[in-house]
Amino acid sequence: MQWYFVAALLTILTSSQGILTKLSQNKDSTYDYDTATVPFLGEIFKLLVSCFFLWREKEISPTPPKLTKEWRSMRLFLVPSVIYLFHNNITFLTLKYLSPSTYQIMGNLKIITTGILFRIFLERKLTKLQWMAILLLAIGTTTSQVKGCGDSMCESLLSGHITGYILAIVSAFLSAFAGIYTEYLLKKNNDSLYWQNIQLYTCGVFFNMGWLIVGDFQSGFEKGFWWQRIFNGYTLTAWLVVANLASSGLLVSWLMKYADNIVKVYATSMAMLLTAVLSQFLFDVKATIQLVLGIIICMISLHLYFTPVHMLVDLPAIETPVRREEDP
Amino acid sequence: MQWYFVAALLTILTSSQGILTKLSQNKDSTYDYDTATVPFLGEIFKLLVSCFFLWREKEISPTPPKLTKEWRSMRLFLVPSVIYLFHNNITFLTLKYLSPSTYQIMGNLKIITTGILFRIFLERKLTKLQWMAILLLAIGTTTSQVKGCGDSMCESLLSGHITGYILAIVSAFLSAFAGIYTEYLLKKNNDSLYWQNIQLYTCGVFFNMGWLIVGDFQSGFEKGFWWQRIFNGYTLTAWLVVANLASSGLLVSWLMKYADNIVKVYATSMAMLLTAVLSQFLFDVKATIQLVLGIIICMISLHLYFTPVHMLVDLPAIETPVRREEDP
Repeated sequence: MQWYFVAALLTILTSSQGILTKLSQNKDSTYDYDTATVPFLGEIFKLLVSCFFLWREKEISPTPPKLTKEWRSMRLFLVPSVIYLFHNNITFLTLKYLSPSTYQIMGNLKIITTGILFRIFLERKLTKLQWMAILLLAIGTTTSQVKGCGDSMCESLLSGHITGYILAIVSAFLSAFAGIYTEYLLKKNNDSLYWQNIQLYTCGVFFNMGWLIVGDFQSGFEKGFWWQRIFNGYTLTAWLVVANLASSGLLVSWLMKYADNIVKVYATSMAMLLTAVLSQFLFDVKATIQLVLGIIICMISLHLYFTPVHMLVDLPAIETPVRREEDP
Repeated sequence: MQWYFVAALLTILTSSQGILTKLSQNKDSTYDYDTATVPFLGEIFKLLVSCFFLWREKEISPTPPKLTKEWRSMRLFLVPSVIYLFHNNITFLTLKYLSPSTYQIMGNLKIITTGILFRIFLERKLTKLQWMAILLLAIGTTTSQVKGCGDSMCESLLSGHITGYILAIVSAFLSAFAGIYTEYLLKKNNDSLYWQNIQLYTCGVFFNMGWLIVGDFQSGFEKGFWWQRIFNGYTLTAWLVVANLASSGLLVSWLMKYADNIVKVYATSMAMLLTAVLSQFLFDVKATIQLVLGIIICMISLHLYFTPVHMLVDLPAIETPVRREEDP
């Protein structure tokens, strides 16, 4: 499978996520199901799918898939869950200091922090052109989110508290680090991806379960135990939300192993723009000039990052020093 | 003199033009002098300066400067004035169909039409990278002009009449064509630039005079003949407006001869952003996030267009196929 095919599929699924979630709402924007259970069910789904694929790999593959089973190696799969735990708490804290729209704008920093950590921890050198492409991607997504003339929510981007901005920056680094670490983990050895996924998602299941238990304690068990109401109110659309989330997760994991974090960042950024475009048709959202500008900027960025240099400057084909790994 | 020094100077002067004009206003935004006389006086100023420089060139230069004096060649200098005549009338017409802010946004099209005509008429090949840089420059200037949240003038970009948009596109092509034609004219032979300027500005003086006479007829001579009131109300700041306009014009002409239209477009686009930044400090204008984004986009564009390719992609220095002429 080619990485750009997987990336395109991830774009479509990520973009569907927001739309499916919106479609699963009631008319008054409430949910019949408990949204906190979605990530937990997603992890279960991914775990089951990975188990199935590993079993199939064992059946079909002429050589048995490589599975490292030492605790030294397996414990490393706990780290992403721990980072996400920190990250979720920081997000919660950040939103006390920043408005949701400022938080959304600050979220584009993740594109740049991913580039920085990609360079530092994975020691992958990017050309100046690729750095500019990454910066442009962040600028493009930000441009598309600029509040337009006549927007109802109208507050200055700089009106938040300084603590909020620092937390948002920490959050961008943490979130990028989780991605970079996962890439390192999956590429570290040539274990079967499905075996690596199983370890990753087992941790995910437990951490999400912990999250639900904490929620129960916080609400003083007024809704009972989480397992008593886990499937309550799940409609077909709600199940599609879970399946979609889980499928995107599996694609991300594939990209981390066979492509890289930058490809993933491009896919999810493009998804954001695709969601905005689809919202024009599906919901009562008005197109803005900043969305059009943002899309053009991101398209140029995509072109600058991935087009081989000799095609950009009309040179005869030459060996470029830095390209991402090819699909095995 | 290096072209980038001249381009930087042009940026500063162009940027000062808007600020000086604003400073020359009365408190109620009216003018004591007749603003229609500014371009005329500017042409006179440029003509005098060019005469002086040609005389000095004759005095100093060991070889006499080359001056083609055939009517076949001289009549070509009428063309830019004729184009500007059409352009000014079309602008006037366009503003009947589009709001000033939509007209301003559409004005950024000139960056792209300049690139297109530069390619077609001057047969100068641009690399894909340079095309993307030019597109980004237009996107960047447009982004900086997007009306923000809470802006008083709040109308949709697409609310104008279709005729207005077509006229704005025609206007962008005409204005770009005037620039491209002038570049062709000045580079056509190795005549002294000052002699070429004299021909250009002589036409300019006559066409602007015609413009003033038409104005007199339109107002039914209620303010008398234009030459009776030409210096009325001119303060020091008003004279600075004239001197500044004329100096920018001389620099543009220098750039057309020794650099090219794209350099000029970059200088004037950067000037627009510089004006916006200076306005934050000088006048009561609030900084917007779209201005910051626009500036970053234009800086990236500048970098992409002018940085030698081998520096962008960390290759050993190679001969790139398309670069602009060097300063003679």
